[in-house]
Amino acid sequence: MPGSCLERVRANTPLVHNITNYVTVNDVANIILACGASPIMSDEPDDVADITAICGGLNINIGTLNRRSIEAMFLAGKRAAELGHVLLLDPVGAGASRLRTETALELMNALPFTVIRGNISEIKTLAVGNGSTKGVDADAADTVTEDNLPQMISFVKTFAKTNHCIAAVTGAIDLVADAQHCYVIRNGHPAMSRITGTGCQLSGMMTAFLAANPGDHLKAAAAAVCTMGLAGEIGVRALLPGEGNSTLRNRIIDAVYNMDAETLEKGAKYEVR
Amino acid sequence: MPGSCLERVRANTPLVHNITNYVTVNDVANIILACGASPIMSDEPDDVADITAICGGLNINIGTLNRRSIEAMFLAGKRAAELGHVLLLDPVGAGASRLRTETALELMNALPFTVIRGNISEIKTLAVGNGSTKGVDADAADTVTEDNLPQMISFVKTFAKTNHCIAAVTGAIDLVADAQHCYVIRNGHPAMSRITGTGCQLSGMMTAFLAANPGDHLKAAAAAVCTMGLAGEIGVRALLPGEGNSTLRNRIIDAVYNMDAETLEKGAKYEVR
Amino acid sequence: MPGSCLERVRANTPLVHNITNYVTVNDVANIILACGASPIMSDEPDDVADITAICGGLNINIGTLNRRSIEAMFLAGKRAAELGHVLLLDPVGAGASRLRTETALELMNALPFTVIRGNISEIKTLAVGNGSTKGVDADAADTVTEDNLPQMISFVKTFAKTNHCIAAVTGAIDLVADAQHCYVIRNGHPAMSRITGTGCQLSGMMTAFLAANPGDHLKAAAAAVCTMGLAGEIGVRALLPGEGNSTLRNRIIDAVYNMDAETLEKGAKYEVR
Repeated sequence: MPGSCLERVRANTPLVHNITNYVTVNDVANIILACGASPIMSDEPDDVADITAICGGLNINIGTLNRRSIEAMFLAGKRAAELGHVLLLDPVGAGASRLRTETALELMNALPFTVIRGNISEIKTLAVGNGSTKGVDADAADTVTEDNLPQMISFVKTFAKTNHCIAAVTGAIDLVADAQHCYVIRNGHPAMSRITGTGCQLSGMMTAFLAANPGDHLKAAAAAVCTMGLAGEIGVRALLPGEGNSTLRNRIIDAVYNMDAETLEKGAKYEVR
Repeated sequence: MPGSCLERVRANTPLVHNITNYVTVNDVANIILACGASPIMSDEPDDVADITAICGGLNINIGTLNRRSIEAMFLAGKRAAELGHVLLLDPVGAGASRLRTETALELMNALPFTVIRGNISEIKTLAVGNGSTKGVDADAADTVTEDNLPQMISFVKTFAKTNHCIAAVTGAIDLVADAQHCYVIRNGHPAMSRITGTGCQLSGMMTAFLAANPGDHLKAAAAAVCTMGLAGEIGVRALLPGEGNSTLRNRIIDAVYNMDAETLEKGAKYEVR
Repeated sequence: MPGSCLERVRANTPLVHNITNYVTVNDVANIILACGASPIMSDEPDDVADITAICGGLNINIGTLNRRSIEAMFLAGKRAAELGHVLLLDPVGAGASRLRTETALELMNALPFTVIRGNISEIKTLAVGNGSTKGVDADAADTVTEDNLPQMISFVKTFAKTNHCIAAVTGAIDLVADAQHCYVIRNGHPAMSRITGTGCQLSGMMTAFLAANPGDHLKAAAAAVCTMGLAGEIGVRALLPGEGNSTLRNRIIDAVYNMDAETLEKGAKYEVR
């Protein structure tokens, strides 16, 4: 399954409009290129409607939101929705500030997101309207574990159903669900949390997968999660003595660049519940 | 020829003011350092006139333009022009949105650019006042090929003559021309298009070459193109199994850092037409 | 000494709020993660008070300041000061423009900075109220050398005393002083000046060291300088033929990631004067 989703990205080379933070934006652009798609960035209200119109999908990431970029998110999102494009929301830091929580909730209210992708603390915040996010990382108390897996699957399905979207909750165990089905994905490596922006990169790449796979968005979102996690595993295995998080960042993007359908099929670890 | 241009960058260590996009800005700074110059970034209207005054050249890149940075582009450009500095325009995404096309045209109208550097779709857009750019990449239909080379050389010379500047059109074959002469450059590698920002990096580095070579801007611009293309070839040759676009990004900047005049002279592939 | 400071960063994993420039922000985030802390970036006035409240320290870097981010610096700084957080100022480019010099001086006037960290030209500018900074690099005429060391130590102590802070002046020889004591640090390598943002990275990492070592901020600041300098030495030693400044950037962050207390203790080269 994930292999064919990746192949369709490479065949269709979708153009992805990103309104994203300036911390990880370069890595987001390079991973979108690595998976076979093309990125474009624009966050000026006077520019975004034109830019999103020539794209296949819109990735909204609130990581370093400001008044101008928030205005741009709503304008671009409205235009993308009118054109039937896929829309993804990455609610970075929802729960860490009133502005981030409210902006994410208002975006969800205004726009028909295809996928909302975040860590568990961010998604819990959006589920209840407030939260206890520790900065941009998930709170340890919220973590998805093998013990609480049934309840978490139920929570994520309910979130997806309530918000008419696919919910992608990433962490040690990743959950990608619509109202009926949940992909439980066990790819990835703990060292990925020591690099800034693996979540942002995943959101950018997932938007490309969604745009290139209109037939099955749930599978496409899960395939993107498998691709990122497997690239992390390959990247960690390739690390030489003395190498650390900065080189790992390069190796993960490189692994996506070199990923083929067969490697992805073999390496993807998921079940559907 | 290109070797002595590079040596003058290393001898003069010009300071380059960049008003550029936040996607590729770090790589732009590092490649400017790699070639022997120094970068400074500022896009606040209240700051740019002072900053550009202490520099030798101004690189304006509209990649993630916004109302504030557009204002800064005009203010900095006016001051740099008064001081006789070299000015370069990189019209990223001209043709992809009304704002980008109009801003690029207004900047060209207001400022005496030494060089305008873009892909063929962007330059065609500026030549006719509108265009069909596919995001920030060139449209395949516009590509410079061996077949249409005579017509493209003529087009680029006419663009240069009409706009009183040097025109640098980069792609599989690069063309750098004034009204009379056109450097046709065949350095580079297709994999460079799978990294974000090789064009932005070239624009930053070219501004350094222009500032350090006041005697012959056309040669300096062509030398910068040869340097970037040859660095791409060296970077690709150095790639190890499993490495991809993220590592290639590093290897290209590293190759510029290690480039010497002799290597550049030997590796540069150009003719003047 | 420096080893135990590093160990406390790893044990306490402080969250650091950064209002910093978009040129080097990704490297700042990754080095903060490499040393064992967590970064968060926010520069929107409506967001920063909430964000800084959940952090342990605030790193203000004026590298690409604008009207909005300047407003955010004062708001975040005021809130951080109320909460007793550590505050660090990195006056990038003070002396290069009126706006940068005045903003740095006004921030110093309004906020109780724990540390002010810059190159010697920037700190001299702040000492006298104007300066001759060459862009974002120190002016060669200002350099700290073995010959002028006694006078420079005296200058830095006086600056610290006058401004009720720790002063950290980094260059070929680094000086970290309060009114009474000055750490003279001889770690580092000249190649570090050919990478953009080693100073910005140090400021981010130093804020983490300060937040995790409330008992002795002077030692913590000096330990951060030793860590960065030693990482630079390790990074340079690890360079392979053909590698340059872009790979060195990765290797330095990797060296921080792999740094342990014993290596740091053995490699730190400092005296207290």
